[in-house]
Order: sequence, then structure tokens, then C-alpha cells
Amino acid sequence: MKQSQLFTKTRKEAPADEVSKNAQLLIRAGYVHKEMAGVYSYLPLGLKVIDNLKNIVREEMNNIGGQEISLTALQNKETWERTGRWNDAVVDNWFKTEFKSGGETGLGITHEEPLTAIMAEYIQSYRDLPKYAYQFQTKFRNELRAKSGIMRGKEFLMKDLYSFSRTDTEHAEFYEKASEAYMKVFARAGLGGITMKTFASGGIFSEFSDEFQTISDAGEDTVFVDTEKGISINQEVMESGIGEKLGIDTSKLIEKKSIEVGNIFNLGTKFSDKLDLNYKDEKGEQIPVIMGSYGIGITRLMGTIVEVLSDEKGIVWPESVAPFRAHLLCLSPEEQTVKSLADDIYKELDGAVLYDDREGVRAGEKFADADLIGIPYQIIVGKKSHQDAVEVKNRQTGKTVVKSMTEIIEWLS
Amino acid sequence: MKQSQLFTKTRKEAPADEVSKNAQLLIRAGYVHKEMAGVYSYLPLGLKVIDNLKNIVREEMNNIGGQEISLTALQNKETWERTGRWNDAVVDNWFKTEFKSGGETGLGITHEEPLTAIMAEYIQSYRDLPKYAYQFQTKFRNELRAKSGIMRGKEFLMKDLYSFSRTDTEHAEFYEKASEAYMKVFARAGLGGITMKTFASGGIFSEFSDEFQTISDAGEDTVFVDTEKGISINQEVMESGIGEKLGIDTSKLIEKKSIEVGNIFNLGTKFSDKLDLNYKDEKGEQIPVIMGSYGIGITRLMGTIVEVLSDEKGIVWPESVAPFRAHLLCLSPEEQTVKSLADDIYKELDGAVLYDDREGVRAGEKFADADLIGIPYQIIVGKKSHQDAVEVKNRQTGKTVVKSMTEIIEWLS
Repeated sequence: MKQSQLFTKTRKEAPADEVSKNAQLLIRAGYVHKEMAGVYSYLPLGLKVIDNLKNIVREEMNNIGGQEISLTALQNKETWERTGRWNDAVVDNWFKTEFKSGGETGLGITHEEPLTAIMAEYIQSYRDLPKYAYQFQTKFRNELRAKSGIMRGKEFLMKDLYSFSRTDTEHAEFYEKASEAYMKVFARAGLGGITMKTFASGGIFSEFSDEFQTISDAGEDTVFVDTEKGISINQEVMESGIGEKLGIDTSKLIEKKSIEVGNIFNLGTKFSDKLDLNYKDEKGEQIPVIMGSYGIGITRLMGTIVEVLSDEKGIVWPESVAPFRAHLLCLSPEEQTVKSLADDIYKELDGAVLYDDREGVRAGEKFADADLIGIPYQIIVGKKSHQDAVEVKNRQTGKTVVKSMTEIIEWLS
Repeated sequence: MKQSQLFTKTRKEAPADEVSKNAQLLIRAGYVHKEMAGVYSYLPLGLKVIDNLKNIVREEMNNIGGQEISLTALQNKETWERTGRWNDAVVDNWFKTEFKSGGETGLGITHEEPLTAIMAEYIQSYRDLPKYAYQFQTKFRNELRAKSGIMRGKEFLMKDLYSFSRTDTEHAEFYEKASEAYMKVFARAGLGGITMKTFASGGIFSEFSDEFQTISDAGEDTVFVDTEKGISINQEVMESGIGEKLGIDTSKLIEKKSIEVGNIFNLGTKFSDKLDLNYKDEKGEQIPVIMGSYGIGITRLMGTIVEVLSDEKGIVWPESVAPFRAHLLCLSPEEQTVKSLADDIYKELDGAVLYDDREGVRAGEKFADADLIGIPYQIIVGKKSHQDAVEVKNRQTGKTVVKSMTEIIEWLS
């Protein structure tokens, strides 16, 4: 894509009311636009990052048997009344509104209720289980205070998977598989090594749940890390005797701030009981289905990557997530030989790079913009470049190598 | 995908309150789930159809220079107040709700306002124009009466593109390009020949606008068709003298019911004026940007395809849109040789078909289900099949040919 065609531009300053690093950088680089506190639009480069993250998550969810669906934002009040979660005293962050045709509705904060109701129409027998369904869906949460940029919004994109199993054993097996798939997602998204499975409070059905926490000073959570085992314990359960259960000397753990990028909950039969999701077993008995929920905030993941991988010059995307693998910079498009070489490279790569072809922009400005935008490799075409010698700079390390045009094309094709 | 793994099942009856053919068939075949009147969830097969339609539209929008973005559902009241469209007396189908942090918001009915406001931050000079941005976004419209199944919902998916041009000439050129791209979209989606560019009322800025109407008895619109020229005139402008302008003898036109699957509006400077979207021309003068909007209802398009292409047995998908190109039916999986042959075909095709591997289901039921689901080709593996002779039935024509396994694999790979 030609940068002269891209409708966004970089800017020197983020909006004054934007305090988080992730939103500041993403706005300055033209990835997102702030509509209101906690509500962000995704512009061309930003949507590419989101799509890359979705594809990583989609592949891993498909690998463990997930079937992709798309539930609605508008929620059926009656279904939520059956689980007691329509009540504002139970769930305090609903956006509620009214149908002109009569009756109330609310915007989906999460989707256990509607999916359980759908499954009750399709699951009758033990032969129909286990099943796993997931979606990428906008969630709406009426937070009193939006903070942390795109990491905690009032409207945000989430991948939520729900599992439906016959027995605790079957549930536990899938839970473990999903947990492994989550670690693969975070590794592929560039957060490997600093993201760990974390023991946290489990809610009603189990003592503990699994969180996935990425170590970062921008985090809102506090975890205690066992660096050897690569796991951690959320502060909220440190006093519960979890250390002994896991065989860990909690006095040796290291306290860190962290960002919750994913979680897994054992829901037991809480929703199945209330929404009549049962199956008939081999003996003909009606048994409630055992459920689990598995979330990854896609927009939060994007924000986390920016928080932990950026430097003083701007964003540093991992290759797997970057809007483009390479940023082709033509430093002096006014000179015909320079422009021809850059044009040739762009053409040979079939437009699959971001091509800074802008005229009337100084080289220094192009470098600064490219560093802010954070595409992993910069292909620099200037007056000294020729077919056999073009500089390629690694955005993260700052190191430069010289490659021929042929090598560059082979590498990126 | 194995049908035994798919969590949906076909059903004999649609919900009693569902009167439209498209929703009845889509619900019975397991593509969609009705949450409430005018609010539908998309299940695994349904989401695949939506994704196929999105990909067709995306390719054609990219081809004419569109840049994909994703705007928000929650709308900034202040922006809409500037154009006067926050007022319920002006726009009567808002879903409005309140932030717990204070202030009102509404759910996006359309996105002219937020995108114009974003563009005002990026467009300063004539060098920044023209630009085209589009999105696939859920729209929310608080309709008093939901009807026509997924063709007119309270929550539905739409592709909306907006153009930003310097001059009327530049606008008209893009308008024509977009109109051609739309015809390509409808042809690729299986609605070629029965979808025509239709002259309709134009709103404030031009006498006429372009609608794209698909001839169907299920339609809510009435158009007068010139079969020779392949265009039509919406009833609403028949008395306007349009016939003379177009050189058409309106007395010879044929009256038809039709479904509006797309539209293009010339917005002129209506939004630019109110939201300060100007550019500086070569002489340094501030000029308002000329805008257009270009919509295709993705879920409506899906419903239209079902309305016009289904038969008494069920849905008939065009290949470009179908959830799978072929439906592999193993008629007697209990018999080892039959099952082996079907398994082999499935394996060689890398799972890229819907494979009815269900045990304990009669052949007649499998045929009926396959016809209802409407995948274009049925590969039928029964007792008489062998490696050199497998029946392949065309869902639309009902005609059967016999192919070898090798031929089938080559054809579908």
C-alpha cells in the first residue's frame, strides 16, 4: 500500500486526555481514533493488526475443535432473567435500552446466556457432546471509568469460546488443551516468555481459575512469579494456601505488575441448570452439561503488545502481528533513479509492503514516522542505493544489513 | 468438516412466529438462530456464508481503492448534534442509552457522522484527496416492525463505503466505478441478471440516486423494469419525468416486486459543511469536501440469495457463497467399505467439504438434509460406489454424473 494513498497520517501529539502509552502511540501513528473515553475506532493500519491477531486466535481455536459463530449484541432480557444476571444489582455494567416495539434489551457484556440457550436446542443426547463454539464479538461494558487506553474499553473486541462437556474429566481435558492453545496464541503474538499461566480466584465452581498475565508496569494486576516454572499466582489468592498445593515456596516468588490478556473459567453447571441445558446419558438419565468459558480480549492484546514492545521512538510490532512485514522508504522520490528503484521493489512485491512514496517529506521525517508506525523491517532506498545494495533496517534492534533487490524480493515473497 | 461434529442440526419446523421464507429455511437448516424479532445469531454454516459474501465485497471495494476500517457502535452524541441527526424527530429509529460516567450515547444506525469527523482530522489539502474508506459493521435500527427475516433486522451487518472527493467530476467518476463494482458483487454472489441498477429518489443533493434491486416476489419495493437495457425505475420516481430523461418509454416497462440489495447516495457537502471537512485547494481557498455513501447489506444479501434461489426442497447456494463447495454423503457408514471410501475422499480433500458421516441416520434423511442445507454439489457414497464410480449430484439441477475418486479430488482441490 502506498503511504500517499493511506488516509491516515502520523501526528506529533496524542489527545490531551489520553494518558495511556498504548493509546497515545496508536493514535499518533494513525492506528486508532478515539471517539469517546473507552471507545476507539480502528483505522486501516489498526484493522490489519486486529485481523492478524484474529487469524492467530482463530487458527488455535479451530485446532482444538472450536466452531466459529457470531452472536448478537442485542440481548434477550428473558434469557438473562433466568440466570439472574439481568438484575443491575448483580451485573452493574449493562448498557440497557428499549425497543420501540416494546420491552427492554441490553448490549452483550458476555455471551454465556444466549449460547447456552442456543445449545439447549441442539444438544439432547450424550452423542451430541462435547462441543465447542467461539466468536469474535464486540462486548459493551458500561464502565464508570475507562482507563488504560484500548486495554479496557466500554466497547471492545473479544474472542470468547464456550465448552460443553459431559463429565468433569472430559471438561478438564479440554480445559488443559485450551490452556495450551492460549500459550501458543500469546507466543505467536510476540508475548512469549513474559506471559504466564496464573492461578487466580475461581468463582463459584472451582477454587482456582487460570488467568494469562503478561508482565508489564502498565498492568492493573499484581502477580507473584515463579520464574523457574514460568507460572505465577495472582495476589488475590496468595493467602489461600495455593503455594502449598502447588508445591511452591511463595516467599521466593517475585512481585510484578501485569496485564490479564486471557482467562479460563470453569462454569460447572451454573448456566446449564438455569437454562435447561441437559443431555440424556447412555442410561437415559437427564444430566446437566458442564461448561467452561475461555476469553481473550483482542483489542486488549493489541494494546498489551504496544505497551510491552514499544520503545522511545514508537511501536515495535512482532512480524506475526504487524500491519505489513516491511516498510519501504523512498527517501528522495523527486529523483528519478531513486524513485524507479523503489517503484520496482514495490511492484515486484505486489504491493505487500507499506511504501512511503510521499513527495515533499524530509528523510528525517520519514524515518521518524517509520519508527513510530513500528513495522518490523525498513527497506531504505536513497541516493546511494542501487539494485545490488539496499539497506534493510530492523526496527527492534536498529541494525542494518545491505541486501540486493533480488534478495529482498525473495525474502518477502 | 464432519457433520457429526457440527453442533447444529436441521429441523422440520421453523419457529411459529417466523413468516419469511429466508429465515424459515436458514433456521431449519441451522444457519441462523432467532434471538428476538429482527435479531439473529449466525451459527457455523451461516457465518461461513457471511464470510464468503464479505470477501467478495472486500475484493471489489479494495479494487476501487477502498481502505477498510472499523468504526464503533457507540456513537458520540455531540457529533450527531452538529448535523441535527441526534434529534428523534429527524431520525426515529435510534437505540439510545446512557453512560454510567454521565451523558447519552446511541447505537450506530449509519456512520456518516463519525467518519466525516475522523476525516476532518486527516484531510487538509487537495493533495489528501480523493479518499475512500469502508467497513463491515453491525448497524442497529430500532424498527417498530421487524419483518422479512434477516432481510430487515434491528441488528444487521452492512458494508458501508464513504467517498471524499474534491470536485463534482471527481465524485461522479468514483460514483460510476462504485456502481460497476456493485454490479460485479451481485453477479459474483449469484444474483446476476436479476439485479439491476435502479433510478430512485435522490434526497437533497441530487435528483436521483442509484439503488440495486433484485427482482423477487418477497421484495418490499416496486420497480418498473426495462428488460432490454437491464435497468429499472423505482415506483417512487415514476411520475418525475425520469423516463423522458433516460429516453425510455415508461409505458413499456414491466412492474415487478424487488429487494433493495444496495444503494448509492450523493451526499454533496451536507456532512462536510456541518462537520467542517474542508480542504485547501491549489489557490489556498478552503473548499468543502464532496461526499458519497455506498451501502450493501451483507445479511440482507444472504437473505435475498435464499429468497430467490431456493426451491421446494430447501436452499440452493451459488458456489461463490456456499459454506462448502461440496457435501460428502456417506449413506451407510456402518458398512466398512462404504465408510472407508468416504473417509478416504474426505481425507484427500483435507476436510474442505461438509462430510455427513453420521451413523444411525437413514439415507433418505441425509438426502433431505443435504437438499435443505443447499451445498452446490453432493458427493454420494453408497453401497454401489467404488473408487472409479462415485455419484456427484448438482443441487440446483438435480442432475447426477459419475466420477472417479481421483477426478473428484482434482476438481475440488
